[in-house]
Amino acid sequence: MFIKNAWYVACASDDINGKPLGRKILGVPMVFFRNEHGEPAALDDFCPHRGAPLSLGQCRDGKLICGYHGLEMGCEGKTVAMPGQRVGGFPAIKAYAAVEYGGFIWVWPGDGAPDRDALPKLEWVDNPAWAYGGGLYHINAGYELMVDNLMDLTHETYVHSTSIGQPEIDETPCKTRVDGDTVYTERFMSGIKAPPFWQMAMRAQGLDDQATVDRWQVCRFTPPSHILIEVGVALEGHGGIDAPDDKKAYSVVVDFITPETETSMWYFWGMARKFKPQDAALTESVKQGQGKIFSEDLEMLERQQANLLRYPDRKLLMLNIDGGGVQSRKVIARKLAQEAEAN
Amino acid sequence: MFIKNAWYVACASDDINGKPLGRKILGVPMVFFRNEHGEPAALDDFCPHRGAPLSLGQCRDGKLICGYHGLEMGCEGKTVAMPGQRVGGFPAIKAYAAVEYGGFIWVWPGDGAPDRDALPKLEWVDNPAWAYGGGLYHINAGYELMVDNLMDLTHETYVHSTSIGQPEIDETPCKTRVDGDTVYTERFMSGIKAPPFWQMAMRAQGLDDQATVDRWQVCRFTPPSHILIEVGVALEGHGGIDAPDDKKAYSVVVDFITPETETSMWYFWGMARKFKPQDAALTESVKQGQGKIFSEDLEMLERQQANLLRYPDRKLLMLNIDGGGVQSRKVIARKLAQEAEAN
Amino acid sequence: MFIKNAWYVACASDDINGKPLGRKILGVPMVFFRNEHGEPAALDDFCPHRGAPLSLGQCRDGKLICGYHGLEMGCEGKTVAMPGQRVGGFPAIKAYAAVEYGGFIWVWPGDGAPDRDALPKLEWVDNPAWAYGGGLYHINAGYELMVDNLMDLTHETYVHSTSIGQPEIDETPCKTRVDGDTVYTERFMSGIKAPPFWQMAMRAQGLDDQATVDRWQVCRFTPPSHILIEVGVALEGHGGIDAPDDKKAYSVVVDFITPETETSMWYFWGMARKFKPQDAALTESVKQGQGKIFSEDLEMLERQQANLLRYPDRKLLMLNIDGGGVQSRKVIARKLAQEAEAN
Repeated sequence: MFIKNAWYVACASDDINGKPLGRKILGVPMVFFRNEHGEPAALDDFCPHRGAPLSLGQCRDGKLICGYHGLEMGCEGKTVAMPGQRVGGFPAIKAYAAVEYGGFIWVWPGDGAPDRDALPKLEWVDNPAWAYGGGLYHINAGYELMVDNLMDLTHETYVHSTSIGQPEIDETPCKTRVDGDTVYTERFMSGIKAPPFWQMAMRAQGLDDQATVDRWQVCRFTPPSHILIEVGVALEGHGGIDAPDDKKAYSVVVDFITPETETSMWYFWGMARKFKPQDAALTESVKQGQGKIFSEDLEMLERQQANLLRYPDRKLLMLNIDGGGVQSRKVIARKLAQEAEAN
Repeated sequence: MFIKNAWYVACASDDINGKPLGRKILGVPMVFFRNEHGEPAALDDFCPHRGAPLSLGQCRDGKLICGYHGLEMGCEGKTVAMPGQRVGGFPAIKAYAAVEYGGFIWVWPGDGAPDRDALPKLEWVDNPAWAYGGGLYHINAGYELMVDNLMDLTHETYVHSTSIGQPEIDETPCKTRVDGDTVYTERFMSGIKAPPFWQMAMRAQGLDDQATVDRWQVCRFTPPSHILIEVGVALEGHGGIDAPDDKKAYSVVVDFITPETETSMWYFWGMARKFKPQDAALTESVKQGQGKIFSEDLEMLERQQANLLRYPDRKLLMLNIDGGGVQSRKVIARKLAQEAEAN
Repeated sequence: MFIKNAWYVACASDDINGKPLGRKILGVPMVFFRNEHGEPAALDDFCPHRGAPLSLGQCRDGKLICGYHGLEMGCEGKTVAMPGQRVGGFPAIKAYAAVEYGGFIWVWPGDGAPDRDALPKLEWVDNPAWAYGGGLYHINAGYELMVDNLMDLTHETYVHSTSIGQPEIDETPCKTRVDGDTVYTERFMSGIKAPPFWQMAMRAQGLDDQATVDRWQVCRFTPPSHILIEVGVALEGHGGIDAPDDKKAYSVVVDFITPETETSMWYFWGMARKFKPQDAALTESVKQGQGKIFSEDLEMLERQQANLLRYPDRKLLMLNIDGGGVQSRKVIARKLAQEAEAN
């Protein structure tokens, strides 16, 4: 079950520069490309002529040319031309709303008029005080399992013990609160040593990496499955997350989760950084480090998914640390019910 | 649904020289080998003793020796001997008619007495004026999709744009006609430049590769799924397909399509060439070039098949260019109905 | 259908030194590890918190720490601790009896109190007159097919023709007899040349590898699926299997077959050798040779399994050479019926 009337990340902006991209989203094979103005378009990846995937074709003058017999498809899903044919009676294929924002192509799989304002606000977009880097993983697990994972960072101590995990995470309770459709899970640690990843960030920021710090994790879920996590460390006693910029290393972990099928997902991960934004080498280094850390979750989630498929009737525990995931799933369930009712 | 009472190519003659070959044909695992006279034999690939695949065994004196316990199987599907056993009561396995012709082993999957005269006539067999080369691809798509592909060469402009495709194909309408069970789709182009593949052929034939030419494509379908395509170029104004041999480069594209399952096929492709037949290097070069060109269809057909499986209810268009495929499928449907009625 | 109340080999002792091991046994994902005394433990590989596989975690002080959120699992399947949580109400997961013997960890998948005396007696364990070496193969075939394979060594002539096969095996009838739940299939050959593997063994033992020998194969099946085969050669006329140790090369082929699913198995193979036991290089050499020989069965069994799945209604033959397998399957069927009745 997927929320359909929502913006999902389909691909990176670069993925459709000059060529189409085929990708299954919410169980539907879609093709993404750009129109003559460079704006993104999304269609069923199915040529109305003989069912060939349009994504194997080419872009020409903002049209998508089927790679099999040259049918020319427009952005609205209507055939515009075909060599030696009149195309007026050709059936249209489904088009989906698509917009570009923050280096991503976003798609709205549902019907109806989507609201561009419903896109998440990303503070770092077109903001020179920030730098961004990220990547994409395909994971054979349902997207809800990733929501659980990210709304409970206790797992860092175990899954990411050599980079961002540290015992103080376990020892510091987290708090979950709900504000409308938004779910927050927060944890604040005081007077600790920074773990290796944050020591690297402190050095990059010009801070003493052996200094005692305050550390924070503020996870924020918004539907359908977007999670932004404010993370960082500040020199002890300067206000933590509210410390002046030169006393802290502050970032936002970016997690846009797009279901591929009920048991697989496209996981767009990244980090927006509010220190040393011009340092491209640092951006690359942070991306490499984050990519390695996040890859540690893959096997765990895929094998957790396999276990849950084998034992579909087992009830799982919902502990305090699971509050963020539990509340996020409640929001998802409410949205799904609203969509079901509207149909 | 497969036409069963027809000859299909099972493998190349060389494939069963000295050893058996296992291959699934029309959904049935079969084993092919040679009897004591070197003639081909075809059986269910299933040892009546314990179900081992006979194709993992060895040939000895025209018998097939099971590789598990040494059961000796004859060409009729009857067990001939087994170490330390009386075999009179062993159940027979199914045998299929098989013949050798034109460098291929042909099998008749149906019951009843097959007609050797029903084999397609191949002009180049045992004919020193011709040369032949070809290969085999396994494709995860139903054989009907390849029939469509080959009975409509419009796709050359798009799928094979760097070798045999050219815009004039699109611009020249094709004609489809039906003669009994045979379907023809023809296209004749006049006063054009030869595309790269045919320029190579003209050079090989001693013709000026920059000369203006006439070009032809005459596709001929015969059931169950054999397609021979007369192709070539002639110096302009010498009669096109009927020009004297020294004024043209003339070939037959050979396509024997054997269903493996409902959604996969063995695709035997090749080219019979009526120029420079003694030039073995040219034969190899043509084969390499053709193999590369035909490999460009594989992903398209496999992903088209995946699309059709996902949307089984979508009606496809039947345009003028699709006439060859449409008519060929009608012949297939009529043959299938005849077989169903006979049972 | 599996016999559940029996000891199966789960893994080698070394496999759980210092870390847990996940393995599916009789269709159930299990995790194996050692308690604080070094004794083996077996549990469902399913964390009661969120369903993560416990086998991705770590061992600490005889407890199994879940690699996702640090839940601490004890050997009885009860959660012992979890950071920041009270765990008294956590549901237990299933624990299985496990023992260590002969270099293996054995598991009892059934309920009830298992009998350690039900373990097979292995003469070579803790016996300096013997040496042992072996390995593990995963095979996509039902375990019954391997029982058939091992209780009928006629196949050696065909599958293993270059190592232990020889025509005299075919020519010498075997005898099958049943003693309670134990099935024996025996073959005694006299006055023959040793095949390559046994020539190697004779050289190692200091015997003339060209000498005429007597050879024996005594297969012994005990439920659920353990097969020990006494094999060897003795200089002719010294009593065969009963010849003095210095006149023969005597071994036991060890085959512990553990079903993974209905159509796949873990196959623990090895050889216990009663000559030159201190010669570690010989142990390694025998293991390499045996591993190569046994790998020759893999494709045959996997493709036999595929054939049987395709033709589930075909009756297989039961010849004299199949007597060992037939009788062993009768024992299995009787045990299964007893278990079904007890439930």
